[in-house]
Amino acid sequence: MQLGAMQDWKLRVTHLADYAAREHGTREIVSHWADGSETRTNWAGIRRDALKMTQALRQMGVKKGDRIATLAMNHHRHLVTWYGAVGVGGVLHTVNPRLFDDQLEYIANHAEDKVLLFDAAFAPIVERMKPKWKTIEHYVCFDSGEPAIHFEDWIGAQDGETEWEDGDEREPCMLCYTSGTTGNPKGVLYEHRSTMLHAMAGLQPSIFDFDARSVMLPVVPMFHAAAWGLPWGGAAAGVKFVYSAVNDPAVLCDLMQREKVTHSAGVPTVWLATFQHMDATGATLPHLKQAIIGGSAAPRFMVERLMKAGVNVAHAWGMTETSPIGTTGARTFDWDDLSFEEQVDIKCKQGRTPFGVELRCVSLDDPGVVLPRDGETSGALQVRGPWVLKRYFKAEEDAVDKDGWFDTGDVAILYPDGTLQLTDRTKDVIKSGGEWISSVELENAAVGHPAVAEAAAIGIHHPKWDERPVLFVVKKAGQDVSADELKDYLAGHVAKWWLPDAIEFVDDIPHTGTGKISKKDLRERFKDYTLEDAA
Amino acid sequence: MQLGAMQDWKLRVTHLADYAAREHGTREIVSHWADGSETRTNWAGIRRDALKMTQALRQMGVKKGDRIATLAMNHHRHLVTWYGAVGVGGVLHTVNPRLFDDQLEYIANHAEDKVLLFDAAFAPIVERMKPKWKTIEHYVCFDSGEPAIHFEDWIGAQDGETEWEDGDEREPCMLCYTSGTTGNPKGVLYEHRSTMLHAMAGLQPSIFDFDARSVMLPVVPMFHAAAWGLPWGGAAAGVKFVYSAVNDPAVLCDLMQREKVTHSAGVPTVWLATFQHMDATGATLPHLKQAIIGGSAAPRFMVERLMKAGVNVAHAWGMTETSPIGTTGARTFDWDDLSFEEQVDIKCKQGRTPFGVELRCVSLDDPGVVLPRDGETSGALQVRGPWVLKRYFKAEEDAVDKDGWFDTGDVAILYPDGTLQLTDRTKDVIKSGGEWISSVELENAAVGHPAVAEAAAIGIHHPKWDERPVLFVVKKAGQDVSADELKDYLAGHVAKWWLPDAIEFVDDIPHTGTGKISKKDLRERFKDYTLEDAA
Repeated sequence: MQLGAMQDWKLRVTHLADYAAREHGTREIVSHWADGSETRTNWAGIRRDALKMTQALRQMGVKKGDRIATLAMNHHRHLVTWYGAVGVGGVLHTVNPRLFDDQLEYIANHAEDKVLLFDAAFAPIVERMKPKWKTIEHYVCFDSGEPAIHFEDWIGAQDGETEWEDGDEREPCMLCYTSGTTGNPKGVLYEHRSTMLHAMAGLQPSIFDFDARSVMLPVVPMFHAAAWGLPWGGAAAGVKFVYSAVNDPAVLCDLMQREKVTHSAGVPTVWLATFQHMDATGATLPHLKQAIIGGSAAPRFMVERLMKAGVNVAHAWGMTETSPIGTTGARTFDWDDLSFEEQVDIKCKQGRTPFGVELRCVSLDDPGVVLPRDGETSGALQVRGPWVLKRYFKAEEDAVDKDGWFDTGDVAILYPDGTLQLTDRTKDVIKSGGEWISSVELENAAVGHPAVAEAAAIGIHHPKWDERPVLFVVKKAGQDVSADELKDYLAGHVAKWWLPDAIEFVDDIPHTGTGKISKKDLRERFKDYTLEDAA
Repeated sequence: MQLGAMQDWKLRVTHLADYAAREHGTREIVSHWADGSETRTNWAGIRRDALKMTQALRQMGVKKGDRIATLAMNHHRHLVTWYGAVGVGGVLHTVNPRLFDDQLEYIANHAEDKVLLFDAAFAPIVERMKPKWKTIEHYVCFDSGEPAIHFEDWIGAQDGETEWEDGDEREPCMLCYTSGTTGNPKGVLYEHRSTMLHAMAGLQPSIFDFDARSVMLPVVPMFHAAAWGLPWGGAAAGVKFVYSAVNDPAVLCDLMQREKVTHSAGVPTVWLATFQHMDATGATLPHLKQAIIGGSAAPRFMVERLMKAGVNVAHAWGMTETSPIGTTGARTFDWDDLSFEEQVDIKCKQGRTPFGVELRCVSLDDPGVVLPRDGETSGALQVRGPWVLKRYFKAEEDAVDKDGWFDTGDVAILYPDGTLQLTDRTKDVIKSGGEWISSVELENAAVGHPAVAEAAAIGIHHPKWDERPVLFVVKKAGQDVSADELKDYLAGHVAKWWLPDAIEFVDDIPHTGTGKISKKDLRERFKDYTLEDAA
């Protein structure tokens, strides 16, 4: 017998659009287009258009669970699509237009996308891929007609007088692929419930610090790692969104000033480009209060510069598999008693977990051994929690161990207070004589030399030591350095036994579709490489 | 076929203690006792003691769903009890020691409490009530031995090496009674899930604005409306709690200064007493940043004074049935463009809903008519959401309508932007000639007169108008005013047809156990009262 009850209320993400439209209906959503024009709508408009899109998708025959793909930059029509796709009970599949053709082919076919919505700027991709995409039945273009359906005409034919599709809170709402370092991309299938809990957590001061006053310009693309959950979390606080379909620093700086942007989120390279523009033009960002940096580690000078300008830096770690928030560089309990340098030290690490995320490191040699949180011992980073992946899309088995731990593929150190410091990727760390060498730390030391543009270290087989590091280096244009000179330089920055057995100068280092160094391709290119003293 | 999945993770409140102990384990929990002594522990200690209590309760034979009652002020042993009671799968029942004996008797018997933990200060209540409490098998005293078990001895016999009881997230975790204006008190049975969602929402800047730096002194008693969820929400951010077992303003001010308290929460009378102490002694609260005021409406000068001191005021509305957060005086999107006076205007209303809470007003005459959010029309306030009551404890039927709306018993106006303004209680509003008169507005106008100490308006039957207001007034000591003078004064503050048909001067006005004016008792006292012109 039930003795009493609180209300039934499913964690379905459509509640977010309802709330934002009802309580923050007039709060603006601004889109800056590639041609310089701007469109202004608001949360009431977003919800109305999403309901129209729900109707239009139903007319196309889209049913619960069907995948609806997008190939688009950041703008309000893309935001409408997030809510319209889930509104019909579908699964929003944001595709990264920067992927290689074979990945684009694999992903859309593996996802069995039924509808694709795309920017006219990506029409060449669509034309090229169309013959290879087997399941897409309908193409809708966000900003142009012919030969596809024009988005505004498509939803404009509807009246918006409908209801969201209902269902269980553990039904899927979104699908994002992560291009792993080996094998085919893998799909992470987010659920309504996981997405909602992630969005609610995101409001807290230690993550996005959102309230109705917040004006967020997300530089992070809507196709990257679920856009860090911003389209969901932003609705839960009724923030004003300022979207730019182009990532030109001049445009971004201008928008930030004109629209009084208080919050921004992006990868380190975006902040770098913004700084360069500011230095060149004298532009400032007087309204900015909160900068969320993720995707890869932020250099110290970047953290320092933002903090000196009075901006709170949330230096985040996460991955597509964690929705993506794993840790943020939250201010510690003793923050106000710390010196500026000590504060920067904290922000340069990857921070601590919000409630909901749990981390541990296990031995790289034996995942059964849980390592201490001592600030020294590095190991394989594992994570669990309500917005962490359990099983990849269409996978045969779970990606977690019996206690629910997901292996991140990162190598990290955990401090006694829970602070995370990433040191490498599991696949890239170099095992030498039973000990582990961080390829990333070796590379970071190398790029500190004024003649080095880029560096990548990989382990090469060695009969005695198992593996030894070899460093591949691209020199800066017009600069020179010899292998011995560089080795001497490195000796001042890393342990002696970490020093590479060989340094090879190359014209270029291969990159992935998302711009990271591709160790996989580097290993492939040098698969016949042998160390001289090991030959 | 399940195509993929995110992790299974139940919304059980024991996760909160686990997180706080793991990630904020050294963060202090301070208790100031009635004798002036202080105890310091931390989140790791709270969890360890709660696990010990879980073991101790198991030894007593406490099983899943059993009710464990407390009769206690604010201190860390009470906090331990919150987590220990839910840890064993039990239901924490916080009892208000200020209730009348017949209420205390009814509540403990209706709840079927099995164990009672109490402060030595309330031992007289326990001795007096023991013969009337039919189900309580074990008595544990927080701060004394004999004749009850001493809390520290009781848990001290355990080693804490155990696991929390597992279960469904919709199992109950807490029970709070609300002393209604009519009939017996009603129990609100909170679930793990509802409590957790409420706690997560509470972290956001618009509610408690909690992060690891926060130092919270909750003046709101832990037995009042689930302590506003603070023991749960505080754990989710790892805040430092400063508890005082006494509510003496001198002690509170001293603690706030010494412990660098940044956040506090209490009813308006607490702030009033604090101000008086500050004025008398010159004490200041230099660290205070966030003041949550709830329970009843805060007067304008209180809001103003706190804001002038640089404190953000969260003027909240809620009730035991809403966990209790319903609305908070969140800063609006245009906050920084408003004048100080405009900001105070906003904070003097009851604010807006966070994501998760939905409000509407319906006609007092016909609940089928939903009223516009026009800032003018007042009606019966209804609420729904994941942390809102559906069915009272042991009730035969749900307390919500077919669409899930719970009637709050409040009369309110909603503004176009969702801002809530309370005007009366449904049971107290006076119907005259088909129109409604707010008893609260009449009373507020009356207490504006310098000779009036307290005033209460009730509706008296009238053959022509249905009801007409009669105002009962207690004069200030040494002050005088006639009925005609007061009527003249009121004429300048309310509509002519609102003016009371009679003003009666009385020596006292009856109050409830929680200190509010008891209109029920007032009506009972004057049940034979007739209006002269209606006789």
